[in-house]
Amino acid sequence: MKVTLSALDTYETSFTPLVVIELAQDVKEETKEWLRNRIVAKKKDGGAQLLFRPLLNKHEKETLGNDNLYLVGASRVRLLLGAEALGLVKESTDGTMRAFTHGTRHSFRGFHDDNDDFLTMAECQFIVKHELENLRARDEQMIPGCPQAKLYPGKSLLRRLLTSGVVLQVFPLHDHEALKKLEDSWYTRFSLRCQPIDRIRGYFGETIALYFGFLEYFTLALIPMAVIGLPYYLFVWEDYDKYVIFASFNLIWSTVILEVWKRGCADMTYRWGTLLMKRQFEEPRPGFHGTLGINPVTGREEPLYPSYKRQLRIYLVSLPFVCLCLYLSLYIMMIYFDLEDWALGVHDESGTEWTSVLLYVPSILYAIVIEVMNRLYRYAAEFLTAWENHRLESAYQNHLILKVLVFNFLNCFASLFYIAFVLKDMKLLGQSLATLLITSQIINQIAESLLPYWLQKKHSVKVKRKVQALKVNIDATFYEQVILEKEMGTYLGTFDDYLELFLQFGYVSLFSCVYPLAAAFAVINNFTEVNSDALKMCRVFKRPFSEPSSSIGVWQLAFETMSVISVVTNCALIGMSPQVNAVFPESKTDLVLIVVAVEHAILALKFILAFAIPDKPRHIQMKLARLEFESLEALKQQQMQLTAESLKEELRKGGKEMA
Amino acid sequence: MKVTLSALDTYETSFTPLVVIELAQDVKEETKEWLRNRIVAKKKDGGAQLLFRPLLNKHEKETLGNDNLYLVGASRVRLLLGAEALGLVKESTDGTMRAFTHGTRHSFRGFHDDNDDFLTMAECQFIVKHELENLRARDEQMIPGCPQAKLYPGKSLLRRLLTSGVVLQVFPLHDHEALKKLEDSWYTRFSLRCQPIDRIRGYFGETIALYFGFLEYFTLALIPMAVIGLPYYLFVWEDYDKYVIFASFNLIWSTVILEVWKRGCADMTYRWGTLLMKRQFEEPRPGFHGTLGINPVTGREEPLYPSYKRQLRIYLVSLPFVCLCLYLSLYIMMIYFDLEDWALGVHDESGTEWTSVLLYVPSILYAIVIEVMNRLYRYAAEFLTAWENHRLESAYQNHLILKVLVFNFLNCFASLFYIAFVLKDMKLLGQSLATLLITSQIINQIAESLLPYWLQKKHSVKVKRKVQALKVNIDATFYEQVILEKEMGTYLGTFDDYLELFLQFGYVSLFSCVYPLAAAFAVINNFTEVNSDALKMCRVFKRPFSEPSSSIGVWQLAFETMSVISVVTNCALIGMSPQVNAVFPESKTDLVLIVVAVEHAILALKFILAFAIPDKPRHIQMKLARLEFESLEALKQQQMQLTAESLKEELRKGGKEMA
Repeated sequence: MKVTLSALDTYETSFTPLVVIELAQDVKEETKEWLRNRIVAKKKDGGAQLLFRPLLNKHEKETLGNDNLYLVGASRVRLLLGAEALGLVKESTDGTMRAFTHGTRHSFRGFHDDNDDFLTMAECQFIVKHELENLRARDEQMIPGCPQAKLYPGKSLLRRLLTSGVVLQVFPLHDHEALKKLEDSWYTRFSLRCQPIDRIRGYFGETIALYFGFLEYFTLALIPMAVIGLPYYLFVWEDYDKYVIFASFNLIWSTVILEVWKRGCADMTYRWGTLLMKRQFEEPRPGFHGTLGINPVTGREEPLYPSYKRQLRIYLVSLPFVCLCLYLSLYIMMIYFDLEDWALGVHDESGTEWTSVLLYVPSILYAIVIEVMNRLYRYAAEFLTAWENHRLESAYQNHLILKVLVFNFLNCFASLFYIAFVLKDMKLLGQSLATLLITSQIINQIAESLLPYWLQKKHSVKVKRKVQALKVNIDATFYEQVILEKEMGTYLGTFDDYLELFLQFGYVSLFSCVYPLAAAFAVINNFTEVNSDALKMCRVFKRPFSEPSSSIGVWQLAFETMSVISVVTNCALIGMSPQVNAVFPESKTDLVLIVVAVEHAILALKFILAFAIPDKPRHIQMKLARLEFESLEALKQQQMQLTAESLKEELRKGGKEMA
Repeated sequence: MKVTLSALDTYETSFTPLVVIELAQDVKEETKEWLRNRIVAKKKDGGAQLLFRPLLNKHEKETLGNDNLYLVGASRVRLLLGAEALGLVKESTDGTMRAFTHGTRHSFRGFHDDNDDFLTMAECQFIVKHELENLRARDEQMIPGCPQAKLYPGKSLLRRLLTSGVVLQVFPLHDHEALKKLEDSWYTRFSLRCQPIDRIRGYFGETIALYFGFLEYFTLALIPMAVIGLPYYLFVWEDYDKYVIFASFNLIWSTVILEVWKRGCADMTYRWGTLLMKRQFEEPRPGFHGTLGINPVTGREEPLYPSYKRQLRIYLVSLPFVCLCLYLSLYIMMIYFDLEDWALGVHDESGTEWTSVLLYVPSILYAIVIEVMNRLYRYAAEFLTAWENHRLESAYQNHLILKVLVFNFLNCFASLFYIAFVLKDMKLLGQSLATLLITSQIINQIAESLLPYWLQKKHSVKVKRKVQALKVNIDATFYEQVILEKEMGTYLGTFDDYLELFLQFGYVSLFSCVYPLAAAFAVINNFTEVNSDALKMCRVFKRPFSEPSSSIGVWQLAFETMSVISVVTNCALIGMSPQVNAVFPESKTDLVLIVVAVEHAILALKFILAFAIPDKPRHIQMKLARLEFESLEALKQQQMQLTAESLKEELRKGGKEMA
């Protein structure tokens, strides 16, 4: 993709625009000039040494009257050196994965001095983003032309520009050629082959590729469950022993698939290099505030916020608030069940058509209330977590995820738990489970992908018309692309997608033996989910910045916790089934004791299994060991030379003293 | 400590003997000469560059007729360079911990060119041991003068010498002056102060210091339990609510102390430098065998053994064998209970004096059988684990520990579980617990320390008399020391000591609410245990080689597992107590369900607590982060220079092309 606009004002012969910076309309020329200088300046002068130009040249600006969009690119060497600074890991010609260095660039597979494919476009964009974020204030007290935006030495300029509203957004550009290819092999033609995970990774980066990889893996892993579950539905099997078989299979299955995923994930991320990538030192997140002081780790000046204050906020405000919300959610659920009872009572007393409609009212009300509460809680959780003032983005994310997860878990499953263990109505449990699972899947698919896609399409037609109406004397394709993408929604990360899978996993595993068909519905949903999520990524949202990651992180823990809870619920359900109760007609206590003993045994087995299955496949372990050994050997070689020299010197000294 | 024998045959003015090598009596002169050459040879010629001399010079040899003992030492520079090769971590003058390098030696606290205290004697001995073990075969096909001892390039010479019986043993020497000081501050005067852990570490190394640190910590942690337990015994409290309070306290206590220990341990090992020490690449353990091949990690020739064969041996032989032993142990326990019943029956029928003696016979028999089984099983476990042919010593140790732990756990606690949950006789449970705890403590103290000490003392008097009878013309102190220490037993590691603590922890926590006095007995035992173990280390055994370690390793996991099991047993005991049963007179099922619910809640709380308490104290985390940051910064600096140079070069090239 070559730029078709003519604004090439340096000696560079080719400029590939990678990232777009949108400034606010009212930014002064002084600020723009300063920003340009800092981005273009040499590294040793505190710049980012990137290429920077306006989207439109002077002539075009006059025509279109829009001059707040800028393109950032970088020369090839600059990108390679950026890759080295980031610690990007690439495959070398001898098949091992190594951290890329510019000095040894020729020893990496696929590197030639004259090809541009060595770094994927996603990697280039990530490098540019990283360099922009690492552009730091030197002796400036504030952003020129913007006195309210204070700076201190070492403060990331881009972050201050964003928080002070000078820069509205920074986003990477789509590559329509590559996107087309990706789409063709991904979702446009319906077929049953696997997703092109490596290509997704090349285009969107590791975090998103891992999500799609997990989605696919999880769907495939559900198929055996779905197949085994079908006959239960078809032949209305309700024997005790068949339930036990299904539940036992389910329990072992849920442990094994999570362990196997860990191994598969290590395999993938080793191939991608992120398993070996060293984490950079994390900067404070943009929203973090505090009194200026010296960071004890870096020795740099930055805002500091005492840890005990944060702990107080977490334990004295956030924790009680979350508990209160959970209580409230339970309380509303109880009201719902009361309403349902009341409606049933009214219908039984005077069974008219109106009262039969009344039967549906509580469910509809409850669904609406839950949805409203979910949204309100999400805002509250985001506000509270921001107010806790975490220094790191990762800590912020973890605290937010924990808060949202707990609440969503309760909201989705509390009524099921109530039906299962208080009402003990297995028939109703199966019905509720089916209703919840299917409706949530349909609503999600529509609200998440199809609706935004439709809106996006409408908007895109409008923009195209507008651009064509301009009839200016430039190649409008690129201009149109930037204007279109600027207006697209921002993909807020994989959180909601994982949450959906997590809740689905709950529906499938928590009460599996009551509704064995759940897995089949989940499989069907996920086959379409792959496509609608792919559509969403490619067509609805701005291209997200690639983000290296070596695993699905906290979600692994969340899924494992869910599978532990599912052991408890499944054992309890089997213990409560009338068939099992019939085996112990005289003593219920013995039954309970046996069920508890079995449950403990299964839990112990789960932990032993998780402990005994290595997290990384053997060949990855070997490769990692080899890498470590090599670095130790290199160190030893260095020391051996040192030893020889030092001993020589020591002997010479000794000789002198003796003489 | 200067050597008082006269065998100083190099230009070195001082030779501190660190390590003794004992050769077999029938070793040929050729082998001795070759060994001497290899140890003394320069590093670059494949030697160890250490100092090496016989214990006796020629004149003395003729008098004493004993020439198979050799002393190994090292020059000061050699030791410093060895410390660097090992990656020893020391405190630098700015208070941070850094890997020692000879080049930057002056930046470390306590380093002067003319003092010898910088490295502790234990460290020096560890360095010498490491250098000896790393002395490797070059092109030799066998050990000269010993054709049956085959060699291949890269094989550790010392290990082959040991396995072929040429070298009988290698052991470090005690330093009587330092030992005296250590003993004075440790155990000779009885007082209630803390142990001098740092001094123990300086003399015996980190692994042993960590054991004593854990013993002390554990004892202090038991004191609150003991204090709370006392009034239950004194006032015969048997109320339900008091038991519940005691058990709840016990459960939270056991979780918290283990978490706090992890933090304390990180604190200590950071100070000692082992927390930061990089693990060296592990060599195959001496007993490992296989077909010669290329190790895929190191690329060196060494014996290889396919992993699947090992897995088969573990899962098809070892696992069934262990299960069989566990079954046998349970079977014998059942026979014991039958015997006891029978004896009671006989006594009840015809109550003579003889039959009242008969009452004790089953217990005595059972105790003897258990002891015999324990020993037999230990041999079998060692044999099996060796036969599994693990490549690494650490894997061997882990598999052995697991085997022995499971069996010991069952042997010690099976009868208690039987009494508690099958016989449901709480009175008998309390009695059995007390008997088992107290007798095992007394027997251990005697068998482990006092008896060997007495034997050792007798032997030492004999040797002294013998040496004095010689009346040779040499300073006999050092000769006597070596001869004495040569005959001392070898300390086989901390395994048995930890096992004792582990079982004690089981007695205290598993059934704590039945016998609240257990903690008090454990505390009393441990106060004397500290002293008897100290005596054992200082007086009974050869000095062990120091072994760096950063935690108590697999024992942390073992103790945590025990504390999980104790939650289950304590909840069950409380649920079974008549007072609790009285609260639910009509429905036992409700009672069981409530107990199970509480148990699950406590277990969940335990896991959340373990997750929420960070494993390292904040200041250690900060220091580690700082170290990581600094190494990243150093890397960046390096890359920045590179960047500048590369860009310059690139520009020059570009300029040329343009021209």
